[in-house]
Amino acid sequence: MYRTHTCGELRLADTGIKTTLAGWIQRTRKMGGMTFVDLRDRYGITQLVFNQEVNAELCERANHLGREFVIQITGTVAERSSKNLNIPTGEIEILVDDLTVLNAAKTPPFTIEENTDGGDDIRMKYRYLDLRRTNVRANLELRHKMTFETRRYLDQLNFLEVETPVLIGSTPEGARDFVVPSRMNPGQFYALPQSPQIFKQLLMVSGFDRYFQIVKCFRDEDLRADRQPEFTQIDCEMSFVQQEDVLNTFEGLAKHLFKTIKGIDIEEPFLRMPYADAMKYYGSDKPDLRFDMKFVELKDAVSGRDFVVFDSAPYVGGICAQGCATYTRKQLDQLTDFVKRPQVGAKGLVYIRFNEDGTVKSSVDKFYSEDDLKAIGKLFNAQPNDLILILAGEKEKTQKALCELRLEMGERLGLRDKNVFAPLWVIDFPLFEWDEETQRYFAKHHPFTSPKPEDIHLLDSDTGAVRANAYDMVINGVELGGGSIRIHDSQLQSKMFELLGFTPEKAQQQFGFLMGAFQYGAPPHGGLAFGLDRFVSLFAGLDSIRDCIAFPKNNSGRDVMIDAPSEIDQAQLDELFISLMSPDPKG
Amino acid sequence: MYRTHTCGELRLADTGIKTTLAGWIQRTRKMGGMTFVDLRDRYGITQLVFNQEVNAELCERANHLGREFVIQITGTVAERSSKNLNIPTGEIEILVDDLTVLNAAKTPPFTIEENTDGGDDIRMKYRYLDLRRTNVRANLELRHKMTFETRRYLDQLNFLEVETPVLIGSTPEGARDFVVPSRMNPGQFYALPQSPQIFKQLLMVSGFDRYFQIVKCFRDEDLRADRQPEFTQIDCEMSFVQQEDVLNTFEGLAKHLFKTIKGIDIEEPFLRMPYADAMKYYGSDKPDLRFDMKFVELKDAVSGRDFVVFDSAPYVGGICAQGCATYTRKQLDQLTDFVKRPQVGAKGLVYIRFNEDGTVKSSVDKFYSEDDLKAIGKLFNAQPNDLILILAGEKEKTQKALCELRLEMGERLGLRDKNVFAPLWVIDFPLFEWDEETQRYFAKHHPFTSPKPEDIHLLDSDTGAVRANAYDMVINGVELGGGSIRIHDSQLQSKMFELLGFTPEKAQQQFGFLMGAFQYGAPPHGGLAFGLDRFVSLFAGLDSIRDCIAFPKNNSGRDVMIDAPSEIDQAQLDELFISLMSPDPKG
Repeated sequence: MYRTHTCGELRLADTGIKTTLAGWIQRTRKMGGMTFVDLRDRYGITQLVFNQEVNAELCERANHLGREFVIQITGTVAERSSKNLNIPTGEIEILVDDLTVLNAAKTPPFTIEENTDGGDDIRMKYRYLDLRRTNVRANLELRHKMTFETRRYLDQLNFLEVETPVLIGSTPEGARDFVVPSRMNPGQFYALPQSPQIFKQLLMVSGFDRYFQIVKCFRDEDLRADRQPEFTQIDCEMSFVQQEDVLNTFEGLAKHLFKTIKGIDIEEPFLRMPYADAMKYYGSDKPDLRFDMKFVELKDAVSGRDFVVFDSAPYVGGICAQGCATYTRKQLDQLTDFVKRPQVGAKGLVYIRFNEDGTVKSSVDKFYSEDDLKAIGKLFNAQPNDLILILAGEKEKTQKALCELRLEMGERLGLRDKNVFAPLWVIDFPLFEWDEETQRYFAKHHPFTSPKPEDIHLLDSDTGAVRANAYDMVINGVELGGGSIRIHDSQLQSKMFELLGFTPEKAQQQFGFLMGAFQYGAPPHGGLAFGLDRFVSLFAGLDSIRDCIAFPKNNSGRDVMIDAPSEIDQAQLDELFISLMSPDPKG
Repeated sequence: MYRTHTCGELRLADTGIKTTLAGWIQRTRKMGGMTFVDLRDRYGITQLVFNQEVNAELCERANHLGREFVIQITGTVAERSSKNLNIPTGEIEILVDDLTVLNAAKTPPFTIEENTDGGDDIRMKYRYLDLRRTNVRANLELRHKMTFETRRYLDQLNFLEVETPVLIGSTPEGARDFVVPSRMNPGQFYALPQSPQIFKQLLMVSGFDRYFQIVKCFRDEDLRADRQPEFTQIDCEMSFVQQEDVLNTFEGLAKHLFKTIKGIDIEEPFLRMPYADAMKYYGSDKPDLRFDMKFVELKDAVSGRDFVVFDSAPYVGGICAQGCATYTRKQLDQLTDFVKRPQVGAKGLVYIRFNEDGTVKSSVDKFYSEDDLKAIGKLFNAQPNDLILILAGEKEKTQKALCELRLEMGERLGLRDKNVFAPLWVIDFPLFEWDEETQRYFAKHHPFTSPKPEDIHLLDSDTGAVRANAYDMVINGVELGGGSIRIHDSQLQSKMFELLGFTPEKAQQQFGFLMGAFQYGAPPHGGLAFGLDRFVSLFAGLDSIRDCIAFPKNNSGRDVMIDAPSEIDQAQLDELFISLMSPDPKG
């Protein structure tokens, strides 16, 4: 061992003891005949003192240490004269009597501080230096703790962690697979799993009863802030359960993590909201419930007053922003610009101000009397000083825009505090989703999701209305995880494939072994998968999942630190019996 | 929940309570007016009773249940008249009053019993049924427990589990990589990691101090019983440590697993054996120390007696098999055939029998007097009834053959009990290995391994003699894990690359970012990786790692259950800008 203590360990009670420490130099400063050095490791920072009067040569050497040098010192713990009570070691310092430079360091390209001067690109290139910053490392420490506590909770409930294969077969359904050419089977490819879905269902057929795995999954999609080509799931499955059992088990996991990691005791059960309500009141299947501001549908209330925008719109809806009646013209214009952005897509914004003095003022005073407006206000239970914001248009699109406006108002009103958590389950998702382009139904969740038993009679007659035993856990507008009760009956599974437009041959080709497995005694089963990256980001208060991944990739799927992907040798290509084509169609 | 209890839970004390169970039918039998059903789940087996006199219709339905049907029953716990004390639930049975068939089952292609009638191939194809067998599932339960306890131990020692990327860059050194074409970067490929070696060293540069990960690794090699294209490592790295610290930490992990998993308390420290001794006394860098039978070098003792085989051989060595002097001619012929097998490769076998009556008999009596033979016997401390077996030839090859012979004799003598564990560290490995074919040195461990400081002066003058700070943990002849203290000095690292025949450009191209990272303040560090599959196999007493992997691949790298790898769509190839070449050179 190069040390007897870490840099976060020594306290006032250790005064007088001899210690050997090793770490990185955070900073050095000279004051008179003294040189002070802050020595840093993962566990903290300890102040070192070199005294010119005591040992001039040693002090001189300390004066030549640069930032991020790795050193080892021996010395005596002493009480500090000027204490720093902001850090746990702030009451002591080390009077150094021996110094070894273990490794010199070039000046890092950015400062290794919580608030660094390095931009995104340089920090990604030198990720190994970025990871030295305490706040970046803290995200990964949090990640470790969360996975550890997740395993502890699930182990106690008899879940077995089983590793499923990474080299599997490609399925053309769903997102794009990463593929791996097989040298031993020329012309054939493995695929990397988008999830262990099929394997975890097979494990239920195998009688494993309760399975989980914290596992890398892969999707070759175009990337954005909360997507990475490789991501990690907490993947779970249980047998002999109904939806309620799955919800209770994983609500329990979430509560366990809140308690052990964040110190937050959530006693009441998570709210359960049908998908239809989530869309109706929040315009989203992942509503942020840290604040209320529910949608109110106004079509009936505003029709027949000759305002053609509202009269011609299939949907008119609004929200009530408390205390915002004093918004200036400029602020309202900003909001109008906000809703007109292409990402939001509304045509315009109508407002009604309920002034403090009891008067009412709107942008549609021409069409609506003060009584009309007050009647609308009643629907929102609007109070003096409130501002009602209204959008109109095609239903789904307008609800989506109103959702964005609601989130924007929540943001402006400071209602989206990262230290407040509003968990809920969104349940009763539709089983199918109609795709206009291909004119067919897709599985909203995946093709193994069970319809609600009471809706099975609608499968043929009213396919789109069939609800699924599917559920998402949503916290603060983030979909942390989702799952479903699976179909365990091979006839019902065949029916699903038929409704999804699979020929029996194609279904057999792609999922034959799963349907085959179901014929040998499949138990009722269901499960769920959490996105670990999102869960950690939520707990860490991060805006991007990248910050909780040790070595993330950029938006082009590149690791700029190791410069991957890269070209490979011709010999490797030859062994795999593949050749490269030019990406240029004329090439 | 489809059940109130599991099939392993109910006891005599539960007599009289109402219960609902769900599971698979292990077997049914009719005895008079009674039908007995063994209901199985992961937790055990519970006997169900259907009584024709009580409910004829229900009993009739029970008579039609097939093996592996999934059923749910409700009934009352009753004391059994004929108890089965071999199983925990054997004192009770359930008097059934309600039965639901949750899923029917086709007759499985092999019996779901510990001793099944299914061959390897059919069990692999129906792996989901094979996994129902209690002994197969037990291996995976053991694996879960071992990883859980590994994490618990390492977490307590402040190790952080950090996920390193799966999509990395290809390095032509070492074993063959699996590669993944990048759609977003046409013509470029990711590689799947053979180990997270470089990333864990970067994490040390980042100040993570103590890292571990239980992680899938990939090697595109031709397969055999203890190799799979994807395998799992317990990968670890520590900063500010010397070799002794690493050995103690992971010896501690092994002892923790022995204690918590196997209930075995190992109090004494693991034996530490220099590589040179392991080769000299056991002909192997992973000796099986469950039994002694050390090699004795006989060159001096046997030379000069005109026996040309021994006189011309650079190496003559033997072992002493206790109590084997009574081996028949046939048994000795078998041993001779054994050592002459191409995998062992000896030319012949010389024996010396020390008979019970004090006489000595050998296959080389023509050349050696009884006194000569007794003198040789003394070197082994041979006793009456012992058999000395001697091989001669080129040193390394003969030691290897003698190692095989020693293991064979250990096997024959019942000295390789799977319930006995003989752990040791093999240390002081050579840093380099000379390759005759390419006439250059390779890194015995890997290019980042540190030489022993006292041997650094030999790097240029006697390269092959330089010993490394490298170590393997060996138990019962299985190399469970290995590692090294790494080079943390970029100049020494450059020197290593030079000795390994890298041009500075090639070293820069392949490891530039690592050498670059080392210039920003690398701490002294070292680590180790265990092969999890091997560790589990050792604890489970398995002959192949396949049996502790849920969904293993066969020797052609195929998953015969899901039929992967497989062909992919032309559209997928087009998107990746690759095309297939014919594996037939004339094609």
